[in-house]
Amino acid sequence: MSGTSILVYAERVGGNLGEIEKLLAGPLADFDGIHVLPFFHPYDGDDAGFDPIDHTIVDPRLGDWSDFKRISQTHELTADLIVNHASYLSPEFKDWQEKGEQSEYDGMFLTFDVVFPNGGTEEGITSFYRPRPGMPFTAYEVGGKRRLVWTTFMPSQVDIDIKHDAGKAYLVRILEALKSGGVKVVRLDAVGYAVKTPGTDSFMTKETLDFVKEISELIHSYDMRVLVEVHAHYTQQLEIAPLVDLIYDFQTAPLLLHSLFTGTVDRLGDWFKIRPNNCLNVLDTHDGYGVIDGGPIGERPGLITQDEMANIFKVAEKNTDGHSAIASVIPQWFTLPHQINATLPNIVKNDTGYVIMRAVQFFLPGEPQVYYVGLFNGMDDRDLFARSGQGRDTNRHNYTPAEIQEALQQPVTQAIIALARVRKHGAFNGEFSWGIIDDQTMRLEWKNGNDVLSLEFKTTVDAPSFVIEATTDGGVRRFSSVEELAKY
Amino acid sequence: MSGTSILVYAERVGGNLGEIEKLLAGPLADFDGIHVLPFFHPYDGDDAGFDPIDHTIVDPRLGDWSDFKRISQTHELTADLIVNHASYLSPEFKDWQEKGEQSEYDGMFLTFDVVFPNGGTEEGITSFYRPRPGMPFTAYEVGGKRRLVWTTFMPSQVDIDIKHDAGKAYLVRILEALKSGGVKVVRLDAVGYAVKTPGTDSFMTKETLDFVKEISELIHSYDMRVLVEVHAHYTQQLEIAPLVDLIYDFQTAPLLLHSLFTGTVDRLGDWFKIRPNNCLNVLDTHDGYGVIDGGPIGERPGLITQDEMANIFKVAEKNTDGHSAIASVIPQWFTLPHQINATLPNIVKNDTGYVIMRAVQFFLPGEPQVYYVGLFNGMDDRDLFARSGQGRDTNRHNYTPAEIQEALQQPVTQAIIALARVRKHGAFNGEFSWGIIDDQTMRLEWKNGNDVLSLEFKTTVDAPSFVIEATTDGGVRRFSSVEELAKY
Repeated sequence: MSGTSILVYAERVGGNLGEIEKLLAGPLADFDGIHVLPFFHPYDGDDAGFDPIDHTIVDPRLGDWSDFKRISQTHELTADLIVNHASYLSPEFKDWQEKGEQSEYDGMFLTFDVVFPNGGTEEGITSFYRPRPGMPFTAYEVGGKRRLVWTTFMPSQVDIDIKHDAGKAYLVRILEALKSGGVKVVRLDAVGYAVKTPGTDSFMTKETLDFVKEISELIHSYDMRVLVEVHAHYTQQLEIAPLVDLIYDFQTAPLLLHSLFTGTVDRLGDWFKIRPNNCLNVLDTHDGYGVIDGGPIGERPGLITQDEMANIFKVAEKNTDGHSAIASVIPQWFTLPHQINATLPNIVKNDTGYVIMRAVQFFLPGEPQVYYVGLFNGMDDRDLFARSGQGRDTNRHNYTPAEIQEALQQPVTQAIIALARVRKHGAFNGEFSWGIIDDQTMRLEWKNGNDVLSLEFKTTVDAPSFVIEATTDGGVRRFSSVEELAKY
Repeated sequence: MSGTSILVYAERVGGNLGEIEKLLAGPLADFDGIHVLPFFHPYDGDDAGFDPIDHTIVDPRLGDWSDFKRISQTHELTADLIVNHASYLSPEFKDWQEKGEQSEYDGMFLTFDVVFPNGGTEEGITSFYRPRPGMPFTAYEVGGKRRLVWTTFMPSQVDIDIKHDAGKAYLVRILEALKSGGVKVVRLDAVGYAVKTPGTDSFMTKETLDFVKEISELIHSYDMRVLVEVHAHYTQQLEIAPLVDLIYDFQTAPLLLHSLFTGTVDRLGDWFKIRPNNCLNVLDTHDGYGVIDGGPIGERPGLITQDEMANIFKVAEKNTDGHSAIASVIPQWFTLPHQINATLPNIVKNDTGYVIMRAVQFFLPGEPQVYYVGLFNGMDDRDLFARSGQGRDTNRHNYTPAEIQEALQQPVTQAIIALARVRKHGAFNGEFSWGIIDDQTMRLEWKNGNDVLSLEFKTTVDAPSFVIEATTDGGVRRFSSVEELAKY
């Protein structure tokens, strides 16, 4: 059973990799792995690193591959493969712009005419499912001609044609760099959008699944594991789970909010019945806090209804004094945002409720990963958002070493670190079971011979409670408060 | 010989139509006509009135048609026909969005599939010449379906299909309202973009000229004159001039700046040789100060070169302490802005030079029209620009009655009003001639029997000079300074 991990930006946890290494060797030693968000060149582009100019090198301002090799000796290192696009400032794109068809990179970037060889129609163009308003393509001058380059995300993020040899060669160059740098888990970023198939919404289609299979084989050939990141309908998550080593469980997060905000556990139960076991267990991440992932998409009903999603956004708005409504974006063709742009502690605004969510995250099968802001029990960074105008910056605070020391004193943070210790309990090598005690209460249990570990939690609105019982040959220990759990 | 006119916003010259009427009956009585910029409902939309929700009524906050009927008894009234688009908030568009094909307005608005019945290609889409970055179409939900509506200008300005009956009926409704309101001259706003013809840049094509002919006949049937507004290559202006009553002379404006900034008159001479006589003589307008109109477009050489255009922008930047460079937009596919967003007095920064420009404007054949900010010798309104972020707002100051009284005391303003009196001199009913005296100096002359009126101006850089001589049976009067001219 692989262990627990933390999700960080290389430069926002103490300011550099050295500070992170100190934490991993010190107060966070109970965690087994680390996912460092895009640290390539540059780490601070338009989309905080997800628009690489050079995806094969470490941004010199952060360090170099030797730093990551050192980290990967003691911790399982996850890094991103930004498979959908590159920066329009990349040498490949600039070369193509300058030489057009004479460039060796001609064909590497996806264009309108490749997506619509027989001409685009309104229906074809507007059927694309994408998380941004406006058109999915942008005008660029290439080889002296006006071209329309596919840009699923921002105009500065030009899409790769993953079916073209030049596109495949680009991805291989990156995988070789990740492998040599000690990476053990490759995160396929936004892979749901990578395959454009006119006539469909081109999101998580059959062609996408084929591509995931194909690139997973390539990654396995480098002896690395594959983690797929797709914010999609839960049924689509179930489809992709068998094809990969790890898939994000983006469903538990909204369902836990639904439970705590309504005092019910039935929907968690619906999901646990069908939930794949090869999940990366996350709640908050560097993106917004996903809600759509539990809800209906198109005609497909969700684990929660449209109104129940609206209620989550409403309570979040109340708990964040209205700020989450300002910072969260409503995508084209939708009436609600997909994600809440706020920190999780701020959304929940109840220490016990928050720690219950973390406990569920650690008790479920799969591999728990804690985002650094949640780990430090961080509140919204409204200044950062005010300066950048990027809603997600609310949840991307730049922690100084001093701020980290202060955060580590908090019982909530200590309780989360304790959960990483709890996760090493022998029971986790046994069998998992769960049950609904009453409308409000649920029990999760691991049993391995005499080693038994249970979490019982009650989701009474604004007054949740929990009990963790750890039974070994030595007797039974009980933890039913944040402070008690912190001392596990 | 029709007379001189002023160009105003209904609400920015003293705050309402009543103040404008007082000026027309008082200090500005020497002007014969007035063009009131879009005063329809609403006058203060995204594009300052050029995105009407209801193009057939006067915005109630400004007055009603009876006010315009009263003004049109003493002054020739010009009003806009915004032929290319309407506001997405118009009742017609909302009805179409709600009912789709069942709406009586289905077909009134231009869509991607109508422009590209066989599918759009990169070449087809990117060949459109348009003054804005991004795509010329915007996604809207119509009748429950995702549609792409053509939006040449802003996404909130939805294009009319002028070939469809519903589009034609819309234009007729407006013309009838203008006619009944006392309008004598209809200004075809941005007509160069109104006809989309795939495979061309759809700007000022043969199809556009056919449409101008067609709609001019319709306007003439209402006994109104037609003024065409097209910012195009000078050769395209020459093509359209014979088809209409009045065409803007957008070429003299940049050529005069070129002359004053380089101390030469040869380019003015090149233009005067071929300049049509049925021009509306303008320098500044409510849009930016046009420079592209004198320059090269595509492969067609201009009256001035690319470098000479760049020099105009450079000197303007110096004279406006860098502000014009901030406020002026560089359109897609170009390296220089098309227009300078600054007031003309600020661009020239030399009273004598500025009054020389006005004198040339009044001495050329055609009908001189003075924009209210230039008339009041206004400087950049940088606060308005800072608040709105719209570059052209720099040149759209809201004048209070007190500010107007103050402006009317300035010799420059008095000199411009004097030129409106000069324009009534008997000589203007005779023959026009012009000549180049030396590299720097030009002479314009009107002769009608013994009535002779001449303007000789010298464009020495930073030290221009002029002499106006008015000869009648009663003798010769000479004016060679702003102050002297003011007392004409």
